[in-house]
Amino acid sequence: MSAPNRATLWGRVLVDELAKGGLEAVCIAPGSRSTPLTVAFAAHPEIDVYSHLDERSAAYFALGRARRTGEPTALVCTSGTAAANFHPAVMEADRARVPLLVLTADRPHELRDSGANQTVDQVKLYGDAVRWDAELPDPEADERKVRTLRTTAARALSETTGTEPGPVHLNCPFRKPLEPLEVDGAVPDDFAETLAGRGREGAFVETESGTQTLADEQYETLLEALRTADRPLIVAGPADPADLGRLDPVTVVDVADRVGAPILADPLSGLRFGSHVDRDRSQDGDGTVVRGGYDGYVDALSAPDVVLRVGASPTSKPLRHFLRDAEARQFVIDPAGAWREATFTATDLLAASPDAVFAGLEERLEDEDADPNEEWLAEFDAAERTHWRVRNAALEADALEAEPFEGAILAAVLERAPDPATVFVSNSMPIRDADRFGRPRDAGLTVLANRGASGIDGITSTALGAGSATDEPLVLVTGDLAFYHDANGLLAVERCGVDATIVLLNNDGGGIFHKLPIEEFEPPFTDQFKTPHGLEFDALGDLYGLEFERVTPAEFADAYERSLATDGTQVLALEFDSEANHRRRDALAARVRDAIRE
Amino acid sequence: MSAPNRATLWGRVLVDELAKGGLEAVCIAPGSRSTPLTVAFAAHPEIDVYSHLDERSAAYFALGRARRTGEPTALVCTSGTAAANFHPAVMEADRARVPLLVLTADRPHELRDSGANQTVDQVKLYGDAVRWDAELPDPEADERKVRTLRTTAARALSETTGTEPGPVHLNCPFRKPLEPLEVDGAVPDDFAETLAGRGREGAFVETESGTQTLADEQYETLLEALRTADRPLIVAGPADPADLGRLDPVTVVDVADRVGAPILADPLSGLRFGSHVDRDRSQDGDGTVVRGGYDGYVDALSAPDVVLRVGASPTSKPLRHFLRDAEARQFVIDPAGAWREATFTATDLLAASPDAVFAGLEERLEDEDADPNEEWLAEFDAAERTHWRVRNAALEADALEAEPFEGAILAAVLERAPDPATVFVSNSMPIRDADRFGRPRDAGLTVLANRGASGIDGITSTALGAGSATDEPLVLVTGDLAFYHDANGLLAVERCGVDATIVLLNNDGGGIFHKLPIEEFEPPFTDQFKTPHGLEFDALGDLYGLEFERVTPAEFADAYERSLATDGTQVLALEFDSEANHRRRDALAARVRDAIRE
Repeated sequence: MSAPNRATLWGRVLVDELAKGGLEAVCIAPGSRSTPLTVAFAAHPEIDVYSHLDERSAAYFALGRARRTGEPTALVCTSGTAAANFHPAVMEADRARVPLLVLTADRPHELRDSGANQTVDQVKLYGDAVRWDAELPDPEADERKVRTLRTTAARALSETTGTEPGPVHLNCPFRKPLEPLEVDGAVPDDFAETLAGRGREGAFVETESGTQTLADEQYETLLEALRTADRPLIVAGPADPADLGRLDPVTVVDVADRVGAPILADPLSGLRFGSHVDRDRSQDGDGTVVRGGYDGYVDALSAPDVVLRVGASPTSKPLRHFLRDAEARQFVIDPAGAWREATFTATDLLAASPDAVFAGLEERLEDEDADPNEEWLAEFDAAERTHWRVRNAALEADALEAEPFEGAILAAVLERAPDPATVFVSNSMPIRDADRFGRPRDAGLTVLANRGASGIDGITSTALGAGSATDEPLVLVTGDLAFYHDANGLLAVERCGVDATIVLLNNDGGGIFHKLPIEEFEPPFTDQFKTPHGLEFDALGDLYGLEFERVTPAEFADAYERSLATDGTQVLALEFDSEANHRRRDALAARVRDAIRE
Repeated sequence: MSAPNRATLWGRVLVDELAKGGLEAVCIAPGSRSTPLTVAFAAHPEIDVYSHLDERSAAYFALGRARRTGEPTALVCTSGTAAANFHPAVMEADRARVPLLVLTADRPHELRDSGANQTVDQVKLYGDAVRWDAELPDPEADERKVRTLRTTAARALSETTGTEPGPVHLNCPFRKPLEPLEVDGAVPDDFAETLAGRGREGAFVETESGTQTLADEQYETLLEALRTADRPLIVAGPADPADLGRLDPVTVVDVADRVGAPILADPLSGLRFGSHVDRDRSQDGDGTVVRGGYDGYVDALSAPDVVLRVGASPTSKPLRHFLRDAEARQFVIDPAGAWREATFTATDLLAASPDAVFAGLEERLEDEDADPNEEWLAEFDAAERTHWRVRNAALEADALEAEPFEGAILAAVLERAPDPATVFVSNSMPIRDADRFGRPRDAGLTVLANRGASGIDGITSTALGAGSATDEPLVLVTGDLAFYHDANGLLAVERCGVDATIVLLNNDGGGIFHKLPIEEFEPPFTDQFKTPHGLEFDALGDLYGLEFERVTPAEFADAYERSLATDGTQVLALEFDSEANHRRRDALAARVRDAIRE
């Protein structure tokens, strides 16, 4: 690994070490100061390079890819405000535990705070939102410095996927020449080895992580609580990216079956959709132990006495309140031992890997006779059946003609998504509707959203980034504000070669504000909250070469299936009245509650 | 000032105090947590409210307004990634000394780091990029807390316009209800006064700032250096917003005339354009003491022996190198006593207000006989004349037909801009071409750019924000990457009612990279640096209701004048080959140098 100058050497060694550590993809925004990194990444045969022009979108694309794979994606930008444009996605990566390696190029130390062009303070730029941050040493053909560089690369990668995965920031100062121009004597010929692999094939430092599991007596506490419970419940909130592939749904269902616990599965938990959903329970019923309709009925049911929770705080507010109001022993299993629990209901926090805990429970329960509380299970069975019966009736096609309803679109998106598929759902109303109207299904749907910080600023890019990591069909469901906010992200459709079916629910502004008391205060409701914009998004189709189709709710199912069967990216745009939609949601919830009380 | 609940009280008191402190405008992005602020701002009769849907664009719009006026603009957003979207503009405001008051709504303390929705760590979010940051106390009808709140508001505003103006961040926690809903007993009736004005008309604390000037012996040092100089030079770099209205160009010209110093006036200095440009010097010549063509010839001239500098580092690289290589005594006058001097050439730093220093110099020089070094002045006169003669010949219309040239457009934009006008110029090549091809003119042109951090991420919004502050015609000159990057900013044209003439120089990617050695390395030059995108921007005209017109360079002058005479916003789009343009720039520079050497 010889190099014509120090900056080039630095870029090559860093990228070599990252590749050996397993990095497979990088998103790069063009810039001059980052040239040594860009050149090295572009030349590396084993790293996929995605080029983006807006750093905010680049960062969300990288986030989406890392969220889908659970593996780190790197990000490269030049110095200055470019680095600050990464900040929103870094924030989301922090809260949602997404492994992201941020490499910001910087001026060398002698130009800092000197009034030099495009020079800002980038040290600790993302504050406490990163798991680790470091500044690379000035490039130099010096053995100890190269050891530092290789070790820093290995460490940075492993910190992104540590006990609490998340973003890591390396600030990288470079001095000119930034391009691979020969500088006499800068890198001696006998420096050619740069310690690559230290004579082995692999990384400079191989890093491995153990798994945090429970000791026997800790299992015993948990088992004792579950065995003696009358009304045990398993609640699966939005899963961390690392757990999505690791926590085996079949194991969770087995444990639930053994202890007689319904599983309330958030659409983002990795448990609402999949082949485990159709595993027969011993008793009759149309479903399995996996429940998805709880948002509509949970407040009408008996309270649990023991709750086992995995994942982040559930999307469903009625569920969160149900848990808050239950006088129950609540075990929260968190792999990072974190306190993600805004309702403050946990009685026991178990810092351990959910997959390890469930595997341990399954093993220990294997020889025990199951003696579930059938009455408790039946209560959930009945409510779930009622929920979907009432919902199905309400969402029938002829009803839709009369009253277009966003919830019906989310129901159809999830019910008709191919198996497998990746479905990305925007914040605000779409994720809430996916929660309410997405019926558990025997299909390999990976449903994702940005629920770490719940912003609407990078939805399109995150979805396309997720799509870039898989050959599965990609579906994005987004509202009009999120679609506007990250319109720049659509450039990745062609530039990064990602096909998608984009379902655009256009209610001309912030529909969610109809849910809030501010609706009653006019002004400023319309101008400052609802903020209708009147944008005709067809033009974005023209700009980015997408097929843009306006469809009615009644036409949606056909258009959706046609799009999924077609190459390229289609935007299916539907228009809704957000106020009418909120009345409809309320009425539907009331109908389910009434039916259950009967 | 009674209020139905604590959050509403807090919003009203804060906004009342800011208005009394002189705040005139706020940019608000919709959100729920920020409701108390939004409602109070929207209801205030003396504050202009601009509603934006993308927080990044909102922040740049606010920045542009504050940059144009020199007065603080406030910004409001909800909690979460919204606040991180302000970060790029905060960075620019820091480096460019633009007064910006950032109000981020936050969850109350009991929900922080709890896994609650849209909850991130917002404390000290912008690191060292803000002049001051504070967290408001929890709202409560408590006298001492209200004193804190009013004092904090006054202090925050005055910190934005302090010795070194810049951004200030107030993090504002609110607890529900966020809307103006009645909460019994939350705000006692006898709390109605809330200390407004403490019985006076005005603010709770009136703040005034003194001006830093020089003492007699400090003036004497400076005068002695100027009097004994053979080749004195005044260099005016990009002006701080506060200095744009404060530093009187006539005073600077008078001082220059007295001491026999050419003024090299950056296009952003506030000195290149204006009625002072035509003040006759005693000697012959086509111009005045104000020089604008130096980028093309300065390296061919004699070095100065005393330099007086104001403003930030000049845009022109030849000028920076000229100053670096001169064996001269260089006085840098900086109102904040900062070291904005990337070439490290200053011998004397004067921490004082440039307007005060020049006024003091003018007064002290009034009775002295001017005895300028005519040879030195003639050298600059001749070079300047040659520069514009060669340039004019090169930019003749028939030459343009043959070789479309971006520099000719910048020349025409500035030469034909109405008097007065605000002209905003993007980074990368447009500002460099404005520097090279913008001839000094007797016209009230306020030329602005984002040269603090020199990003291209918020150009359109900054320009529109600047336009919102004035009745003058607004012209924006932007490249295609900047136009794409902040396409969302175009929403403000209609939403905020700003008319503009937008000159889009489309060379399909990062033209500036042709200037750099990376041009020789293919790959990755085209894919990772030049990054052609092929976007047909007409669609953005459709999306945002703009008149989009493709014009050739030869048609430009007519189209430009037509647009300036027309209401509404027109985009005049021109296409260029960036590689050919760079060859043209180099050839033109060589021609000027050759002509001067003759």
